[in-house]
Amino acid sequence: MNKKLVVIGGDAAGMSAASKVRRENPDWEIVVFERSPHTSYAACGIPYYIADQVKNSDSLIARTPETFIKKYNIQAKVNHEVLQIDPKKSSILVRNLLNGVEFWEIYDELLIATGAAPIRPDLPKINSAGVFSISTLQSGIEARTYMDENRPNKAIIVGGGYVGIEMAEALLDRHMEVTLIDRSSQLMQTLDPEMAKILEDYMREKGVIVRVGESLVNIYADEKGNVMKVGTDKKNLDAEVVILGIGITPRSNLAKEAGIELGEAGAILVNRLMQTSIKHIWAAGDCATSYHILKEAETFRALGTIANKQGLFAGSNISGKEMEFPGVLGTAISKFQDLEIARTGLSESEAKEMNLDYVATTIKSSNFASYYPGSAPIHVKLLARKDNKRLIGCQIVGFEGSAKRIDTIAAAIMGKLTPFDLAFSDLSYAPPFSGVWDAVQIAARRLL
Amino acid sequence: MNKKLVVIGGDAAGMSAASKVRRENPDWEIVVFERSPHTSYAACGIPYYIADQVKNSDSLIARTPETFIKKYNIQAKVNHEVLQIDPKKSSILVRNLLNGVEFWEIYDELLIATGAAPIRPDLPKINSAGVFSISTLQSGIEARTYMDENRPNKAIIVGGGYVGIEMAEALLDRHMEVTLIDRSSQLMQTLDPEMAKILEDYMREKGVIVRVGESLVNIYADEKGNVMKVGTDKKNLDAEVVILGIGITPRSNLAKEAGIELGEAGAILVNRLMQTSIKHIWAAGDCATSYHILKEAETFRALGTIANKQGLFAGSNISGKEMEFPGVLGTAISKFQDLEIARTGLSESEAKEMNLDYVATTIKSSNFASYYPGSAPIHVKLLARKDNKRLIGCQIVGFEGSAKRIDTIAAAIMGKLTPFDLAFSDLSYAPPFSGVWDAVQIAARRLL
Repeated sequence: MNKKLVVIGGDAAGMSAASKVRRENPDWEIVVFERSPHTSYAACGIPYYIADQVKNSDSLIARTPETFIKKYNIQAKVNHEVLQIDPKKSSILVRNLLNGVEFWEIYDELLIATGAAPIRPDLPKINSAGVFSISTLQSGIEARTYMDENRPNKAIIVGGGYVGIEMAEALLDRHMEVTLIDRSSQLMQTLDPEMAKILEDYMREKGVIVRVGESLVNIYADEKGNVMKVGTDKKNLDAEVVILGIGITPRSNLAKEAGIELGEAGAILVNRLMQTSIKHIWAAGDCATSYHILKEAETFRALGTIANKQGLFAGSNISGKEMEFPGVLGTAISKFQDLEIARTGLSESEAKEMNLDYVATTIKSSNFASYYPGSAPIHVKLLARKDNKRLIGCQIVGFEGSAKRIDTIAAAIMGKLTPFDLAFSDLSYAPPFSGVWDAVQIAARRLL
Repeated sequence: MNKKLVVIGGDAAGMSAASKVRRENPDWEIVVFERSPHTSYAACGIPYYIADQVKNSDSLIARTPETFIKKYNIQAKVNHEVLQIDPKKSSILVRNLLNGVEFWEIYDELLIATGAAPIRPDLPKINSAGVFSISTLQSGIEARTYMDENRPNKAIIVGGGYVGIEMAEALLDRHMEVTLIDRSSQLMQTLDPEMAKILEDYMREKGVIVRVGESLVNIYADEKGNVMKVGTDKKNLDAEVVILGIGITPRSNLAKEAGIELGEAGAILVNRLMQTSIKHIWAAGDCATSYHILKEAETFRALGTIANKQGLFAGSNISGKEMEFPGVLGTAISKFQDLEIARTGLSESEAKEMNLDYVATTIKSSNFASYYPGSAPIHVKLLARKDNKRLIGCQIVGFEGSAKRIDTIAAAIMGKLTPFDLAFSDLSYAPPFSGVWDAVQIAARRLL
């Protein structure tokens, strides 16, 4: 029987799902409503676009609405905002943002893939010109255009997470004076403090003014409405541009108002088939929870990799081909200039919170053979459970070739390997790539 | 009870074992006989030393004989060749190569770690000046010294394996005209033909004259004894220097003459405790067999990673702390200039030989996000069994960051993961490191 799938949100999760449903069901009607003017873009590429390492915003777009319409017969309607879900009538209220027209659209299956919104503190001048959150492609284009036109010199970045450190690199590339403030005592809450400190020291060395343990309390604008200063709990700092990277919150209001159950951090609670608490309504991506394999719980983890996977699984399940989402490990990777950062599984802080009986070790080795040109430090922190001996987490901070080693640990965790298994696995070695014992194996041996 | 361990061979396996025994048994007497003047050196670094990327041969030495003597109380006797093993008398006949004195040395436990020898074809002028095998550090120093002094222009490399391709890079770095001949129809027998072809094409593009399907049949020298030409089965080629990289053979003669059982390719047959067929005699490293996890058999695999591990396991077992060697997957990695090459597990040729029912796929993707600067191709070939669905092999050829991804697959094979498990594992993603679906996951999805 042919059905009609309606998708709210046209980025990674929504479009992955729509594409999967199209592959499985050539005859279904598929309609996607996207509030912004863009579909399927690489939000993670925005800092590199602002840095001008990526020249053109179009190259961040994987597929345009036209491609979806012509090539996949998916009605991708951009500039359309969904205002309400009525599960009883299996319909949603939509507004065309270009002409203001509102209409009800009926669905057989509904996928909510509304993503997450950057958190914006409730300050009087938060909407001053020059204050940017980096989230949608549109927000990235606006930030870059503003900087191209106004050539600001002094930048304040609020928040030392992934957005913060990538934007610090981007703004240094734009020859700006960059100050990064974070209210916590460390950058990168997803790393343990001693690993985050290596990054912090390196950022300072490369010219970023890092102010940890300092909170944004005010924003000041001039009479034209341009940002002028930020106030922290310690002092006022000049600012010609402000980047907010203080976290994101799932866009789950539509779902909540429709009576759909929410989970961690207010994300739409889904099961491993991507079903919400209301029949025929599914959710995927940054707006939805993700099953965490090691925590054995639905958690809020908003990342492009997860959104793509969940979209694919949602699409398969909507099509009646049951596929259980295996879950996530909290793997993430980034870099600041040539210092790479990666993590997977549980940090020591998380292991403590879970009251796990674990062992942890941190080693320093070299990315390549120590005598090979360009050889530089790599730091690896590795954790394993004491009871079943399994590896449960890893953090890596180091130079060229360091971070992608995290995938070896992610695969090892998926395969339930122990430190012994990892230490003596037949990993690769040649002088331009690692020492004869790879850094992750040195860490594993230390755990033994 | 304190014992006396005697080790024949002072490189990776021998010294790893000696060091492990010392850590476990502070009071044992440990004597190592090494024929060359060097201990514990990085043979894999030799091409980079010849290329002058590594300036000093000393930096390839991890630990000198003096360090072993002073710091570890290990009597590391270099320039000592072992001539005979007498298992009945638990003793070996040793010759001091500096003064010609021969003596018998008694052991309680004997470890044979004699490594492997480069194969040298039986040709009349094979010992001409300018003809080099690259194996020991001494051989590398001799080759470099010869090239520094004679400034040859035309080089012939015989054999397109790891030594051949790494030496091709090194000699191009020395601004030489490089011709590589291989009697097989492809380079890199450890790769399947279509993957090896990508490398071959790239080597040609970068100026190497590659002549596959062509065998060395003769070597010609001038009246001073310097190499002048090589003859192949097709034509004569001018040569001012010749590098032989046509394979290695385990140095197992001493063992064989002592009545010790040999295995694949004439390597000393060991069990997973590194025991030979004669009690109190152990073997490890390139002279010994390695248990292959997927072939479930003792095979001949001569690599530094394996030698280090086997040495460690031998040392532990000699000390009475039983540790079973988990085995190898045939993982290997290398590069030619900026093209990286890696493999693990079974190639398609090996899977066919074993009559396995398998599926294989080859994909081309990009190493980084396609829009990120420096993004370049990565080719991944992935194999899985049809019966138990497990991953059994992978080959990767591609640019920056490609090759070390092989460790993800090695860990996945160790963890008995299937293509489904790998495809939807929580691997890392950020634009400077990979696409949102890592290339290995794209290959895994294709296998589904």
